[in-house]
Amino acid sequence: MFFKVLTADKQTKARRGELEVSGQIIPTPVFMPVGTQGTIKTLTPEQLEETGTRIILCNAYHLCLRPGSEIIKRLGGLHRFMGWKGAIITDSGGFQVFSLSGLTRISKNGVEFQSPVDGAKLFLTPEKVINIQNDIGANIIMAFDECVPYPCEKDRARVAVERTLDWAERCLIAHNDDSQALFGIVQGSVFKELRIECAKSLEKMNFQGYSIGGLSVGEGRLLMNEVLDYTIDYLPLEKPRYLMGVGFPCDILDAVERGVDMFDCVVPTRNGRNGCAFTHSGKVKILNSQYKEDIKPLDETCDCYTCKNFSRAYLRHLFVAKEISGLALLSLHNIFYFQRLMQQIRDSIERGEFKSFKEQFFSNYRNN
Amino acid sequence: MFFKVLTADKQTKARRGELEVSGQIIPTPVFMPVGTQGTIKTLTPEQLEETGTRIILCNAYHLCLRPGSEIIKRLGGLHRFMGWKGAIITDSGGFQVFSLSGLTRISKNGVEFQSPVDGAKLFLTPEKVINIQNDIGANIIMAFDECVPYPCEKDRARVAVERTLDWAERCLIAHNDDSQALFGIVQGSVFKELRIECAKSLEKMNFQGYSIGGLSVGEGRLLMNEVLDYTIDYLPLEKPRYLMGVGFPCDILDAVERGVDMFDCVVPTRNGRNGCAFTHSGKVKILNSQYKEDIKPLDETCDCYTCKNFSRAYLRHLFVAKEISGLALLSLHNIFYFQRLMQQIRDSIERGEFKSFKEQFFSNYRNN
Repeated sequence: MFFKVLTADKQTKARRGELEVSGQIIPTPVFMPVGTQGTIKTLTPEQLEETGTRIILCNAYHLCLRPGSEIIKRLGGLHRFMGWKGAIITDSGGFQVFSLSGLTRISKNGVEFQSPVDGAKLFLTPEKVINIQNDIGANIIMAFDECVPYPCEKDRARVAVERTLDWAERCLIAHNDDSQALFGIVQGSVFKELRIECAKSLEKMNFQGYSIGGLSVGEGRLLMNEVLDYTIDYLPLEKPRYLMGVGFPCDILDAVERGVDMFDCVVPTRNGRNGCAFTHSGKVKILNSQYKEDIKPLDETCDCYTCKNFSRAYLRHLFVAKEISGLALLSLHNIFYFQRLMQQIRDSIERGEFKSFKEQFFSNYRNN
Repeated sequence: MFFKVLTADKQTKARRGELEVSGQIIPTPVFMPVGTQGTIKTLTPEQLEETGTRIILCNAYHLCLRPGSEIIKRLGGLHRFMGWKGAIITDSGGFQVFSLSGLTRISKNGVEFQSPVDGAKLFLTPEKVINIQNDIGANIIMAFDECVPYPCEKDRARVAVERTLDWAERCLIAHNDDSQALFGIVQGSVFKELRIECAKSLEKMNFQGYSIGGLSVGEGRLLMNEVLDYTIDYLPLEKPRYLMGVGFPCDILDAVERGVDMFDCVVPTRNGRNGCAFTHSGKVKILNSQYKEDIKPLDETCDCYTCKNFSRAYLRHLFVAKEISGLALLSLHNIFYFQRLMQQIRDSIERGEFKSFKEQFFSNYRNN
């Protein structure tokens, strides 16, 4: 059994579950830090393990451009290449092809685009995308999808959904490695009819999990929650649901309430590198002069390596002096913060108290 | 007893000794990685500990400019500020004042210079330099010295030696914290007469250790060894000798042979950040395309975290992709390499085989 729900919350759609990946049990809801280029920026796998991280997301698009998926395969696959003993999920590159590449030309068969690394013309088809992800060797992989920007005309969104469904079928046929779970991706922008049509069609194809893509692209919190409200009802209860690229702590709580099991986001690492730390009482912008002689840790309730060993004054000094170790210490703390939040979410679902935990969290977070 | 010689080599002036600092025993000859701004660049104290490092050098000059020695004092001293449980040595800032500052004006009383951080005019006297180092709170501190560039006229070098001796006396008087050992610094450029005069005069002042400054500034290997040859004979046998800012593995071996006990250098970390790794068979420049698919670790004989977990191909990928974790992994390996070399040096002195160890090392290193 790849996934099972252990406890379903009675007041909301939240669920406490388990993913089983190569013999490793990953409790859900789960947060997956992002290792775009095969490393979680500024951290070693050992440091990452200390944050309680069990699964990470890497970007097939970036890894296929550099160092190349064939090289990763020849070197024994991504786990071995990057020295990560936990689980890995790769995205299909759909989001990156449409958002990062120059000169994109899309057709029924696939997408032509220019590599931002060396300018080479590349052509990706659903079959190639699966092949690339097979070579990289993550535990969970994604179907190739067309991701539209926000806002988007309904007609354009409809064409993208049709293409996404067509490509999803081709991905299922192309994928023949039982050791990797394949997820389909629900698109449809913010149009209820399209999202539901996409979810229903993918459900029939019987993927091992379902991703919700094309959200957190500027539509705002209310619209995102609305889309999740109606979309998730059309996804099977017994399969995991993954909300791609989300998000901030409040977004995660909103989405868990609506039945999402998996999350990935660059927020803890990117904010960490920008000097912004998450704490139980809100954000700490470490460059603020108020921390110049502040002997307190980033978060007095936190047990991470950074909080156990360093004051805000020292961390501020590292940022002022442009020392790289400052970036690592804040990234480490932020990921630890996210993993602790997920642990608290899971515990609260088990106790049947998710709703009150969420309310308490929002009230603490906003009062500070 | 602050320092003792345990084994004196019979064939050379090499010695295997022990520094005792706040109850911690530090075996010598010892290498001290450089943490200029109160952090070993790219690494956490935990990672540094794993390299076998027991003592580090921090720069009083940089720390006094930023964040300020008084802030460090108020926050409990440098050990606590930077979360480092091992020992710390600070330099006096003499070298930095003369090499990094703009508009330096030197007089009998001290040095006026402009802060490269904020342009402020600052005036350092020997008394102030001791006061700064008292505030920072390292275990071993340095007298204020005048460091001349190379090449240097003998007359100018003589004036600098006289000033260094005058300032050394003032530093001894100003220093009244028994918990910090104070070292005098031998200057004199490459002039035998001046070096010997300086060493003899400092010896009479009865410092707890003696540093040799103003070397490795462009004079080359032969001249440096010559200076060490005649200078060290005028330093007391029972006190530790510290060769400042040196060096590469071969320099360290040359200097150990001549009786030096302590070393500091930015080489392992700076080279690490530049993609250059030290190995038992010479340097590995990780960006070279020959490592693109090289599954071997940096050094197959090395037990560091980097070598136990990552291939050259992966480390190269991190550097090509400009990932910060690559800088940390190479810095970690290089410091580990230096600490292992020091361990081998100490073992070889104990066994009475330093000379043959050194020859073997040079022959391996050069054949590759």
